[in-house]
Amino acid sequence: MKKFQIKELDKSKINNYQHIIDTKTKPLGALGFLEKIGLQICLIQNTSKPQIITPQMYVFAADHGIAETGVSPFPQKVTTQMVYNFMGNGAAINIFCNQNNIELFVVDSGVKHINYQVITENNHFIKASLGKGTKNFLTQPAMTQKECLEAINNGSEILNKNKKNSTIVGFGEMGIGNTSSAALLMHYFTNITLEKCVGRGTGLDDEGLKKKIELLKTSKNNAPQIQNPLEILSYFGGFEINMMVGAMLQAAENKQILLVDGFIATAAFLAAFSIEPLVKEYAIFCHQSDENGHQFMLEYLKVEPILNLNLRLGEGTGCALALPLVQASVNFINQMASFEQAGIENRV
Amino acid sequence: MKKFQIKELDKSKINNYQHIIDTKTKPLGALGFLEKIGLQICLIQNTSKPQIITPQMYVFAADHGIAETGVSPFPQKVTTQMVYNFMGNGAAINIFCNQNNIELFVVDSGVKHINYQVITENNHFIKASLGKGTKNFLTQPAMTQKECLEAINNGSEILNKNKKNSTIVGFGEMGIGNTSSAALLMHYFTNITLEKCVGRGTGLDDEGLKKKIELLKTSKNNAPQIQNPLEILSYFGGFEINMMVGAMLQAAENKQILLVDGFIATAAFLAAFSIEPLVKEYAIFCHQSDENGHQFMLEYLKVEPILNLNLRLGEGTGCALALPLVQASVNFINQMASFEQAGIENRV
Repeated sequence: MKKFQIKELDKSKINNYQHIIDTKTKPLGALGFLEKIGLQICLIQNTSKPQIITPQMYVFAADHGIAETGVSPFPQKVTTQMVYNFMGNGAAINIFCNQNNIELFVVDSGVKHINYQVITENNHFIKASLGKGTKNFLTQPAMTQKECLEAINNGSEILNKNKKNSTIVGFGEMGIGNTSSAALLMHYFTNITLEKCVGRGTGLDDEGLKKKIELLKTSKNNAPQIQNPLEILSYFGGFEINMMVGAMLQAAENKQILLVDGFIATAAFLAAFSIEPLVKEYAIFCHQSDENGHQFMLEYLKVEPILNLNLRLGEGTGCALALPLVQASVNFINQMASFEQAGIENRV
Repeated sequence: MKKFQIKELDKSKINNYQHIIDTKTKPLGALGFLEKIGLQICLIQNTSKPQIITPQMYVFAADHGIAETGVSPFPQKVTTQMVYNFMGNGAAINIFCNQNNIELFVVDSGVKHINYQVITENNHFIKASLGKGTKNFLTQPAMTQKECLEAINNGSEILNKNKKNSTIVGFGEMGIGNTSSAALLMHYFTNITLEKCVGRGTGLDDEGLKKKIELLKTSKNNAPQIQNPLEILSYFGGFEINMMVGAMLQAAENKQILLVDGFIATAAFLAAFSIEPLVKEYAIFCHQSDENGHQFMLEYLKVEPILNLNLRLGEGTGCALALPLVQASVNFINQMASFEQAGIENRV
């Protein structure tokens, strides 16, 4: 694997940044969480005049062998159909990226039934397929370690090839069955019991959920002893998830602000965090998903999400929706008057 | 008082709207709270193609007699200075309104030390002062019932005079001491114990908070028996709060979407709700403030806020920050493809 050179944030000017925030014309701390985000972005960009430039969203799509065993109420072909929907500008992530001026890239990381002739040639559609979906990890590794490394490296390269002057990037995913993959990654990277890692995904009923838990337990029992991140990601990961891991690590190496979405994206983040804990300093957690395990992931990482809207859609929608609040946290630092500038008396 | 003609929402097409939401290309319910907001706006506008047009924000500013007794760590002159800051485009509400394309009006509802010569003539500054601040309700009514009625009527008229084609409006406030007024309104309109209604405002320490609670208890003990909304608003309200009550009721009469901000704005909403409960059908609660009593207000009203960012700034900042999410809830309904349009298979 590429060795990612993620730098620890320089905290030497943190008091300067905090002073700027504290002398804006508002009661001390009155902008709450936005003040924390603003401070973090000052540190990431090493400046008291942080900037949100060319926000980008990469949606990685791939299929999963485990979907053949029936872990989702949707048929596997929906992964392909949703990619067409992304390219036709009809999905939720399209709408929210359009609204908030986010440049959207869709990456075929390994979609099974895709037909490129259906998609108009487009520099926002990236062909990076590692195969027609992963193998079914119920009985075998999802991919080889070579494929896993390739996914991570490709994710990193795709980001760098398209990043231009972007200072902030979010990642989304599409892949029928990928909450199963994410649940196992969560379990291996956090040691939280598998039951707490498994949720209803796109909408399983009680019986479906029970079956999913049993299947994932069996998958684990059938697997050999695995422990290092590369082994875990090879055995239970997905092409889209593993590309996202590489892209996240690269974003942090680039000193970009890294927007983390919901359950699957946070599973990828757990892997990135396991490979290089410093990635967390660049990450903003955009929302708490309604998918059961997500709250426990956030607790494990000791992080707070910006939004809690009971979203469980994926595609990076939580990132796209949170962006205006991240923008606000930068704007207040750059644009609000200080008590001195405005000639206002501070607290007595 | 003007009799506000607020119509109950027509629910006859609710199943049609819900069907449109449910057949968008996403798992059922996966957009969580945004789906509820989108449905509410369809009902308010009586259409399956809801629109956010010309969002407006009115910040009502006024001074409070109780501030002379020392209920805030900031001196009373700050109300005036912050109005100048609003007109100089330097306050948080300016930044967030600019970011999210919200038309901002600042209303002098009764600011004590204001000098109009300092303010450049401007059709977004509205002179509607009812006096140089209210009287101190520690020993006397804040205003006469005639002044209270005038405030409510003026709030209504200001909204209608400036509304143009706006379909959505938020209200903010500025007034040193106004968390004290809002705490008493909350207490009278909800019957929640006064201790739970009183918070730190702009940042009182423990001793200051204790003193504030004692002062507000004494104010209550000194007051005569009051119970109807007009009596309560006259005795303990503020010029800015009471104007907001009128503006909120008018917004609902106009079938505008009503964005409710934090502690003080929700106190005004409690009064509006007490006058005409149907106002709630038009209201979206933008955030849960860090001010102690706000969570209890929201519980009393049985409503959920969009954001919970530990904000406690007022000025309508919570509304301005929540607007992009309200916009997203309308955009997904208008712009997302349905399963049928996108040729995607729905759940099996």
